[in-house]
Amino acid sequence: MLYVVSIGPGDLDNLTPLARRAIVEADVVIGNKFYLDQMTPLLEGKRVINSHMGKEVDRAREAVELAAGSKVAMVSGGDAGVYGMASIVLELAQREAPGLKVKIIPGVTAATAAASILGSPLSSDFLVMSLSDLLTPWEVIEKRLDLGFQMGIPMAVYNPRSHNRPGNLRKALEIGLRHARPDTPVGIVRNAYRGEGESFTVTDLRSLYDDDSAVDMHSMVIIGGEGTRLLMEGEDVRGIITPRGYHRKYVY
Amino acid sequence: MLYVVSIGPGDLDNLTPLARRAIVEADVVIGNKFYLDQMTPLLEGKRVINSHMGKEVDRAREAVELAAGSKVAMVSGGDAGVYGMASIVLELAQREAPGLKVKIIPGVTAATAAASILGSPLSSDFLVMSLSDLLTPWEVIEKRLDLGFQMGIPMAVYNPRSHNRPGNLRKALEIGLRHARPDTPVGIVRNAYRGEGESFTVTDLRSLYDDDSAVDMHSMVIIGGEGTRLLMEGEDVRGIITPRGYHRKYVY
Repeated sequence: MLYVVSIGPGDLDNLTPLARRAIVEADVVIGNKFYLDQMTPLLEGKRVINSHMGKEVDRAREAVELAAGSKVAMVSGGDAGVYGMASIVLELAQREAPGLKVKIIPGVTAATAAASILGSPLSSDFLVMSLSDLLTPWEVIEKRLDLGFQMGIPMAVYNPRSHNRPGNLRKALEIGLRHARPDTPVGIVRNAYRGEGESFTVTDLRSLYDDDSAVDMHSMVIIGGEGTRLLMEGEDVRGIITPRGYHRKYVY
Repeated sequence: MLYVVSIGPGDLDNLTPLARRAIVEADVVIGNKFYLDQMTPLLEGKRVINSHMGKEVDRAREAVELAAGSKVAMVSGGDAGVYGMASIVLELAQREAPGLKVKIIPGVTAATAAASILGSPLSSDFLVMSLSDLLTPWEVIEKRLDLGFQMGIPMAVYNPRSHNRPGNLRKALEIGLRHARPDTPVGIVRNAYRGEGESFTVTDLRSLYDDDSAVDMHSMVIIGGEGTRLLMEGEDVRGIITPRGYHRKYVY
């Protein structure tokens, strides 16, 4: 049996009991060092295999091979089914180890973790998009962005920035400005649920287009939709919110 | 302090430690009876307020009022920020109790919980849509569906069916058939992580359009995108998968 275990956005506080048990019961735990480090208290006495960013195919193959003889847990940040390790592990298992049982354990995904810090920006329909063109051609991403912004719904943007693709966010925001109001609220969350490093900023589409230096590779960017507005706490901006629509049906 | 606590898709196995602590430390726990029942072991000695489906505004107001004098946890199924209680609680707190601190605790959302059972249908960009026109006008939903299907990405469909709106799913699938291949894989998951009642079915767009009787109000429907295909286990259909795109970059 091979478990692909979603560990959530950060520390053990967001690891579900189901995910914890899969790690604790495994003989071998394999994953990116960044995520394994957050699981340290659970790893004593286990064989631990660190892998590197960008080596996902090798890591998945190694997990599938090891699972023939031992209980293996592959850990993946956020939810393993969202830009995580679930799909490549299943692809390789299907082809190279057809009898192997692979179980995916769900977790708190980065989009909703970031949303919870900002308030409630994703309360109604929303889009999840990655700006990484490593595995998806940029033309495809652009086409999706153009249609997506026309939908008028919030967008959780993964991989908004990387060393190799510094301009993708600005290009995406330019597409956004074709369809959305320039003052559409945008939230940026860095290191959600990763302790001291956590922070967030509220800005708007036009301002972020003019200066996107606050966004780094540990950021999640949530671009609001037509209904999104600032969430206030007294005079202060507390975050952003997309009301669910109760005002259309009730007086309150 | 008022906590809006995401309890995940089902039993305590998917409740994060952070969410569990917020419930355990509360004096008053308020929520829909369906969700409170799943938290029974944590509720001993607390004031528990059951509320009913469709009474979300009253429930949110009651929570905000009670929070003036006690520690209150409002529980919400899946992730509270996705079609859950987070937004209406924040709306009311902002207006009626401006000094009150409201904290949203994230959880495993129904879309990724269902995805984990099917395999990995949401591994790349995806859409989250609700077919309930209680709070969003149907014309708006139709416009979003039309653009969304043109994006060619998977769609997690919440509220695919209800007693009052039995035809919405079929109308949505009809829009899908305008843009997507009729054999686009579709997964239906019922009662994800709710014990014995859990089940899933794999079908396709055209077949589901012809007969959608397998979908009820406890179902999540995941409609594949252009890249989605069946996931096999030997000769058997094990679920559905949207490969992440490693085949475009690597030979494996």
